[in-house]
Amino acid sequence: MSLTKPATLSDVALLAGVSESAVSRTYTPGASVAPATRERVLQAAAQLGYRPNAIARTLTTRRSRMIGVVVSYLQNQFYPVVIEKLSQALQHHGYHVLLFVSDGHETGATVDDQLMDVMQYQVDGLVLASVTLSSAIAKGCRAAGVPVVLFNRTAPIDGVHSVASDNHAGGCLAAQALLQAGCSRIAYLAGLEDASTQIEREQGFNHALREAQVDVFARTVGHYSYERACEATRQLFSRAIIPDGIFAANDHMALAVMDTLRSELGLKVPQDVSVVGFDNVPQSAWLAYGLTTIEQDAQAMVNATVEVLIEAIESDSRSDSFEAREVITPVRLIRRSTVTG
Amino acid sequence: MSLTKPATLSDVALLAGVSESAVSRTYTPGASVAPATRERVLQAAAQLGYRPNAIARTLTTRRSRMIGVVVSYLQNQFYPVVIEKLSQALQHHGYHVLLFVSDGHETGATVDDQLMDVMQYQVDGLVLASVTLSSAIAKGCRAAGVPVVLFNRTAPIDGVHSVASDNHAGGCLAAQALLQAGCSRIAYLAGLEDASTQIEREQGFNHALREAQVDVFARTVGHYSYERACEATRQLFSRAIIPDGIFAANDHMALAVMDTLRSELGLKVPQDVSVVGFDNVPQSAWLAYGLTTIEQDAQAMVNATVEVLIEAIESDSRSDSFEAREVITPVRLIRRSTVTG
Repeated sequence: MSLTKPATLSDVALLAGVSESAVSRTYTPGASVAPATRERVLQAAAQLGYRPNAIARTLTTRRSRMIGVVVSYLQNQFYPVVIEKLSQALQHHGYHVLLFVSDGHETGATVDDQLMDVMQYQVDGLVLASVTLSSAIAKGCRAAGVPVVLFNRTAPIDGVHSVASDNHAGGCLAAQALLQAGCSRIAYLAGLEDASTQIEREQGFNHALREAQVDVFARTVGHYSYERACEATRQLFSRAIIPDGIFAANDHMALAVMDTLRSELGLKVPQDVSVVGFDNVPQSAWLAYGLTTIEQDAQAMVNATVEVLIEAIESDSRSDSFEAREVITPVRLIRRSTVTG
Repeated sequence: MSLTKPATLSDVALLAGVSESAVSRTYTPGASVAPATRERVLQAAAQLGYRPNAIARTLTTRRSRMIGVVVSYLQNQFYPVVIEKLSQALQHHGYHVLLFVSDGHETGATVDDQLMDVMQYQVDGLVLASVTLSSAIAKGCRAAGVPVVLFNRTAPIDGVHSVASDNHAGGCLAAQALLQAGCSRIAYLAGLEDASTQIEREQGFNHALREAQVDVFARTVGHYSYERACEATRQLFSRAIIPDGIFAANDHMALAVMDTLRSELGLKVPQDVSVVGFDNVPQSAWLAYGLTTIEQDAQAMVNATVEVLIEAIESDSRSDSFEAREVITPVRLIRRSTVTG
């Protein structure tokens, strides 16, 4: 970077032959400025190497306009979709995403070290997607007045907001779809055992089966991984009596189930086995799959996350009146072609 | 955020009963500090709401340790993979990603407005993935001493670095694979017409066909979109004489071609039609596809990007000695099961 004295707003105004307010408006998202003026300002700024300094502004406003987003598990297309929607929603509100990609997903490890790192950037808020948070760090964030929103996860931690789908209802819908299709040997493919999504989806699924007085035929674990879901499917279907219906705790695993059944085991979906997933990722609608699944409304989840964050940032999240918000967004069954009838 | 006076490093040292240097080491990535000490510091910091201030540091060091990353087209799994690797590589070097998701991909629009926005954050460098850059903004970045690396794109713009695969060689390999399989009616499915990846891959493809004295049987355009690639495939294969081989300019479209051929048109891959893609995204290896494709080495591209960035940040990219670097990473054919023979 330059070691010379940086150009100021007035330098730019002088060179461009416009008012300082015109320069300032040029760099204010949404502010009105004549195209010709804007062009002259940009030319002058380029010539002088001028950069309006959002960071210096931070120190006066005590706001960085940055939201730390910690995410893992980008192999699951649900998260790239979320990052895109979240980033655009925050940009729309004048905030930007400081992104941290954690590999803590498979291990289920917490992201404390990364979070300490995030905190150094004076982020105005934190969104944690598909990662685990320790209550120690949560306490630190709250003490620092940095609101935290768990996305697609819930946790019994004081002062942490959460936005998640109605996973219990989704699990019920999945079980009902398989029951209505006449499946009698219904299996469950679990995700990461300690993830709230996994736990709640399975509880809903079991609840609906109990109500129908049907036992779970088999339970196996795919850890939300494509490869491990393929392996779990091989074992499950190597038995003498195989399931005629299976609910996978997310689409990423459901696609692995379909691939294994059709490409390796020569079984037809849904004629031999009905399959239901969870998420409604773009690939579920691909012609090769046409997966029947439980849709999570990513846009509604993102909108709720942004609303909770901004409300918390603009209040003092350490005041005694502070209450963590828990938003649950509705889910619905998307009927495609992997369930009979 | 807090309106009270923020706690200082000495406050934390005092409460924790440790030296200030111990506190500072606790917050220095890679610095050595006894676990017990670290624990006491974190407890005290949580209690006081202490946050080491990386941004104040920025103003003294003139470094934000932030790299602006502008990306679009996250539907193509290649980019989530790249974001994950890039974010982790930069974190490893003590930099973080300020993420901007652009929807400029489909339109091919430039991201000038977003870039002006990025620049306000005093980023130390910029990485642009699958987006277009105007030379006006490029000039502005250079004047401001902010190195820019185009990722997976090349552009004839002064002072802009680029890291891309050997797309021309990749196009040749794709054509040769189809020729060796005995295909005689070879079609090409183009991506976005103005993207350097599309242009170079097609040039290499045509070059290899010319050398074999084979004409391109048909050319159609999928704009790097799944839906548009499905539509292009329907039209291409509705003719009286259909191709027996097709090269899609990326995997995302190649998977759409396979889905359309098999699920809609009842054609077998590779028995009826051989298919070659480009990228080697994770889905290409999925059992449902087993796509033969040209691998882009995402890790090598990311490593080169980080190396070029850091070298440029640590030099003065405005000095007359400055020369933009153009890194080309090698590609290779990954043989799976979508090409006969």
